Amino acid sequence: MNVSIIGTTGYGGAELLRILQHHPEFNIKSIHSTKEDLPIWNEYPHLYGIMDKALQKIDPDQIAEQSEIVFLATPSGISGKLAEAFSGKSIKVIDLSGDLRIPADEYLEWYKHEPANESLVEKAVYGLSEWHHEEIAAAELISNPGCYPTSTLLSLAPIVKENLIDPTGIIVDAKSGVSGAGRSLSRTTSYAEANENLRVYKVNQHQHTPEIEQQLMNWNAGIKPITFTTHLLPITRGIMTTSYVQLTKEYTTSQILELFQSVYEKHPFIRIRPENTFPSVKEVAGSNYCDIGVHADSRTGRLTVVSVIDNLMKGAAGQAVQNANIMSGLDEAAGLGFVPLYP
Amino acid sequence: MNVSIIGTTGYGGAELLRILQHHPEFNIKSIHSTKEDLPIWNEYPHLYGIMDKALQKIDPDQIAEQSEIVFLATPSGISGKLAEAFSGKSIKVIDLSGDLRIPADEYLEWYKHEPANESLVEKAVYGLSEWHHEEIAAAELISNPGCYPTSTLLSLAPIVKENLIDPTGIIVDAKSGVSGAGRSLSRTTSYAEANENLRVYKVNQHQHTPEIEQQLMNWNAGIKPITFTTHLLPITRGIMTTSYVQLTKEYTTSQILELFQSVYEKHPFIRIRPENTFPSVKEVAGSNYCDIGVHADSRTGRLTVVSVIDNLMKGAAGQAVQNANIMSGLDEAAGLGFVPLYP
Amino acid sequence: MNVSIIGTTGYGGAELLRILQHHPEFNIKSIHSTKEDLPIWNEYPHLYGIMDKALQKIDPDQIAEQSEIVFLATPSGISGKLAEAFSGKSIKVIDLSGDLRIPADEYLEWYKHEPANESLVEKAVYGLSEWHHEEIAAAELISNPGCYPTSTLLSLAPIVKENLIDPTGIIVDAKSGVSGAGRSLSRTTSYAEANENLRVYKVNQHQHTPEIEQQLMNWNAGIKPITFTTHLLPITRGIMTTSYVQLTKEYTTSQILELFQSVYEKHPFIRIRPENTFPSVKEVAGSNYCDIGVHADSRTGRLTVVSVIDNLMKGAAGQAVQNANIMSGLDEAAGLGFVPLYP
Amino acid sequence: MNVSIIGTTGYGGAELLRILQHHPEFNIKSIHSTKEDLPIWNEYPHLYGIMDKALQKIDPDQIAEQSEIVFLATPSGISGKLAEAFSGKSIKVIDLSGDLRIPADEYLEWYKHEPANESLVEKAVYGLSEWHHEEIAAAELISNPGCYPTSTLLSLAPIVKENLIDPTGIIVDAKSGVSGAGRSLSRTTSYAEANENLRVYKVNQHQHTPEIEQQLMNWNAGIKPITFTTHLLPITRGIMTTSYVQLTKEYTTSQILELFQSVYEKHPFIRIRPENTFPSVKEVAGSNYCDIGVHADSRTGRLTVVSVIDNLMKGAAGQAVQNANIMSGLDEAAGLGFVPLYP
Repeated sequence: MNVSIIGTTGYGGAELLRILQHHPEFNIKSIHSTKEDLPIWNEYPHLYGIMDKALQKIDPDQIAEQSEIVFLATPSGISGKLAEAFSGKSIKVIDLSGDLRIPADEYLEWYKHEPANESLVEKAVYGLSEWHHEEIAAAELISNPGCYPTSTLLSLAPIVKENLIDPTGIIVDAKSGVSGAGRSLSRTTSYAEANENLRVYKVNQHQHTPEIEQQLMNWNAGIKPITFTTHLLPITRGIMTTSYVQLTKEYTTSQILELFQSVYEKHPFIRIRPENTFPSVKEVAGSNYCDIGVHADSRTGRLTVVSVIDNLMKGAAGQAVQNANIMSGLDEAAGLGFVPLYP
Repeated sequence: MNVSIIGTTGYGGAELLRILQHHPEFNIKSIHSTKEDLPIWNEYPHLYGIMDKALQKIDPDQIAEQSEIVFLATPSGISGKLAEAFSGKSIKVIDLSGDLRIPADEYLEWYKHEPANESLVEKAVYGLSEWHHEEIAAAELISNPGCYPTSTLLSLAPIVKENLIDPTGIIVDAKSGVSGAGRSLSRTTSYAEANENLRVYKVNQHQHTPEIEQQLMNWNAGIKPITFTTHLLPITRGIMTTSYVQLTKEYTTSQILELFQSVYEKHPFIRIRPENTFPSVKEVAGSNYCDIGVHADSRTGRLTVVSVIDNLMKGAAGQAVQNANIMSGLDEAAGLGFVPLYP
Repeated sequence: MNVSIIGTTGYGGAELLRILQHHPEFNIKSIHSTKEDLPIWNEYPHLYGIMDKALQKIDPDQIAEQSEIVFLATPSGISGKLAEAFSGKSIKVIDLSGDLRIPADEYLEWYKHEPANESLVEKAVYGLSEWHHEEIAAAELISNPGCYPTSTLLSLAPIVKENLIDPTGIIVDAKSGVSGAGRSLSRTTSYAEANENLRVYKVNQHQHTPEIEQQLMNWNAGIKPITFTTHLLPITRGIMTTSYVQLTKEYTTSQILELFQSVYEKHPFIRIRPENTFPSVKEVAGSNYCDIGVHADSRTGRLTVVSVIDNLMKGAAGQAVQNANIMSGLDEAAGLGFVPLYP
Repeated sequence: MNVSIIGTTGYGGAELLRILQHHPEFNIKSIHSTKEDLPIWNEYPHLYGIMDKALQKIDPDQIAEQSEIVFLATPSGISGKLAEAFSGKSIKVIDLSGDLRIPADEYLEWYKHEPANESLVEKAVYGLSEWHHEEIAAAELISNPGCYPTSTLLSLAPIVKENLIDPTGIIVDAKSGVSGAGRSLSRTTSYAEANENLRVYKVNQHQHTPEIEQQLMNWNAGIKPITFTTHLLPITRGIMTTSYVQLTKEYTTSQILELFQSVYEKHPFIRIRPENTFPSVKEVAGSNYCDIGVHADSRTGRLTVVSVIDNLMKGAAGQAVQNANIMSGLDEAAGLGFVPLYP
């Protein structure tokens, strides 16, 4: 099955290459970028001798002819336009950007630039693989979830859906490695200023906030605006979300864990950690896992939920391939069985 | 003015040496450790050619005779016993451990080993320099605050004292560099397992919790148990506490900032950051500053308070010297004017 | 084909688990350690849900009965004894330690503890996969090369064998990540003291020196003692060796590169970089590649040879599996096609 | 004594601010940059509350009127022009760039852009403080040494001057933290690509090569072109140079150390490490020290010389202030007694 990638020179694109290189069913038919003509190893020397493909210009007709799926690993603002260019062509589209995730008015407010075509946003299926399997299987256009929303939503879903918590007081303290900021250069992601540092950014203003709230509200209409804070960690890969919620009655940690286990037992990429243990971000590095640990505090009646993912894998390229698998009728785990790289 | 240090081979002790080496008034009279006889540069080669003193055995009588102040940079469990040994002698004692901070029953519950003598705990003045200046000035025995409590308390004090927030719902998401764990070896602080990682630890069980709650309750009797979560960052120095509180009415960020500025305007080590900016941990590295930024979110009615310190400075040795200055009638900033080492 | 691993709790053992978990032909039959009875994910939580095997005690008879190959991922000093215990049993042995690499007298001098049985050392085939393919294919006992020797030897082989350089003046400046020091705890590999640091160690005394010299002399009898210096890098994985040699006559960089390319063109894991480019260690992270770049300096008549590997892969577990493949008549690259994890 | 800084927003400029803020004799009169008008803490928030000065435009006449010394912390290419603008004015100039270090023809060859005015290059005194004290004391214009040359030259001087080594075969393997590359953004110094990495760069082409050779030749006319290789370390501050030289006869390590000790015994910033110990880069972080360790290898007749500095201190701003002290008749160590920040 042929697939194409647009936006191959970013970190999401590079991770798609790593995954697809050994995928048992997908064949990388073409890779595209505005930097055309150079072999991809020129941009990414780690691919020297592994992949000789040259970057090609972006020709939607030709891509649609050659491939069955196209991944848009392009930035917000670009992806929406590309999704439109592919609209109506016989090719499935998986967009990794934020362009198709939230309605136009919210997009404008949080992303501060022009939204994508509204009909596309409506048509796009939100690709949170574990929760929208059927819609994804039937979809032509996927809006792949953001990295922070993936970690947050997977770890809050059971308790939000089952009404175990006060839906008006959700607080998410999120931390991400710098690869989440993409490959474009900035002072805050330069080594000398990111290393030995921890920086809080976009306080109460992160564009992933409405994406998280929208999905939480779909699960539980009582949800009120959440507090969502993001920190830049001095690591390359990995996200941890530490969430704080008020339990509606006295639950023990083990009761909560049972719920999580039963909800996720059929899902190969969700690992619920045993009581009194918590995942750390390195324990999922390079893999598609989302690991979750919880603790109910009897002193305060609050629940702490800790969730980790590799932001380039389950938070981007890994989940995109998982969705491609589902759309193609394959096992959702096909080609995604990476054991975490530890240490 | 002669001072002595016990527990010189730990990181807190080493930082005391760095500060005191250039202090205009204090003279390091003697350094002590169970590893006696070796010159200190044998343990810490960065002091080669700077400090030739040898580690001596711990003889309280002799120390009390020679010095006016002794710093106990020893671990919890040891410090309490040493404080007792100095009790009644004519020497001021500043203990950097947790042994004298909380009552015996709470100590037993959270530290899980035998508490120090209760009368000492009662006698000890809690050395949060900015808030207990007068008691410190008159004290013979100081219990130096913990690193996390220092960052948390300094950044919550104005709003807790002034009753701007719901005192029943304080959530503190704290992050620390590995030097906070001390110099003894452990798997979680080994390079291969701490690097490129973020780890949550002692969830709802960190021993600094009762210390923070006790002080908050002193300021505001309505305070209920807080949620306090600690994370291990892949950095050597630095703490950030991100606190979440519910405002009791609609305050703007700028109103809150005004309060902080007026509360702290006479305090040389507290820097209140301008609206829409937040401190990062590297911006205080090697210095005694505590930098604070806040944001009031009108969507949720919650306030986010971000505070950073260098855990070895304002979180340990720096604040200890600040207290020594106050106890000795010196300018509290004497010898502490380190500009942060950036980048 | 069943295989067993002894010494599974070290980093080399963990990396064997990662590789073998997806190997198309090898099945992990049993894992062994002195810490028996616990499931391996207890030691390595990143394997939670992936591998439920418990660590077993080390029973050579039983292992030999069940498996066709056993990997000894045990420390020097232990491996030799285990190799002896397996001697004469019908199982192939691959030892990752230094115990079987050099003669007893040299071992004693450089390793400073008792050597292994001399007949085993003589019997063991040195498993430098690219150069000893035939002996490996026929071997019962493999001494897997050290991490530094692998990088050094692969990058010097063509010019040493072809006599392009002065064999009396080889200088190798080597740098390694901390995982090379193994999983036991030490001050120099603690985060606070390894991070933001570079440390030189065992100057002119590293135990890999005689291993490198022995192989170089096999290739070129004129080789004289080399200068070999090792540095500890603040990274987890990766080795770079920067070697300096005097060319015997005026060669251009491109002539040298041609030689390397022709020597290694059939070898899937050796990547010779194009002129004017050099590999960096992250470009091979998590993979079995050894990447080489060279530059001939006409000002000095010297050649600089830069080589990088992942010390846990091509420098340990990866090469061990490559050798297991060769011993088993499989494609030497079977199960080793990991694309480097970048960034 | 008033001083001014031009190029204040780079890392060298920021380090000058840190040092001069507490200098007992120098007063920062003005700071300059092309980004004028903003307070410096806007660019460097760690200076918030410490320094309120605004960046001013660069007006040589005004600067010369106000200050006695001006530091040019500007990039190569700019510094030369500025030095010319100050020429003839009554102000001492210390240039931290490479513009005034080597003759025009060599500059063109290695720096690949237009050299500075030749008469300035000739007039400038090379500010290697320990070796040119008298010329510096009398100088009006100082060319401050490069970071790599400082570490290399200080550690080779005794053996080159005393003719203990073969002057035709010097090999320097140098490693630097990323702050050495300055504050402008680049892919190789971005966090995601520098972290967990080691990169070799400008192999046999680094512009500091002729600067090192020129000074070595001044000391020993027999010196031939050296091999000089530079590596980018994943640390912010610090340089290590590991040098390899052939001894002309059998010297022991202790004989060599005696020579170093006697040569440097009056120099407060040079620390010769005891036999069998070597400095690591973190042991000089934030300080003006250059630490040196050596080992003579009887197997090879070669000497290994290891030297470390903080590239922003002894490698740039620290040495610049040391030179300013000497030029002003102060103790050369005035204001430079920073104890290394460890850990």
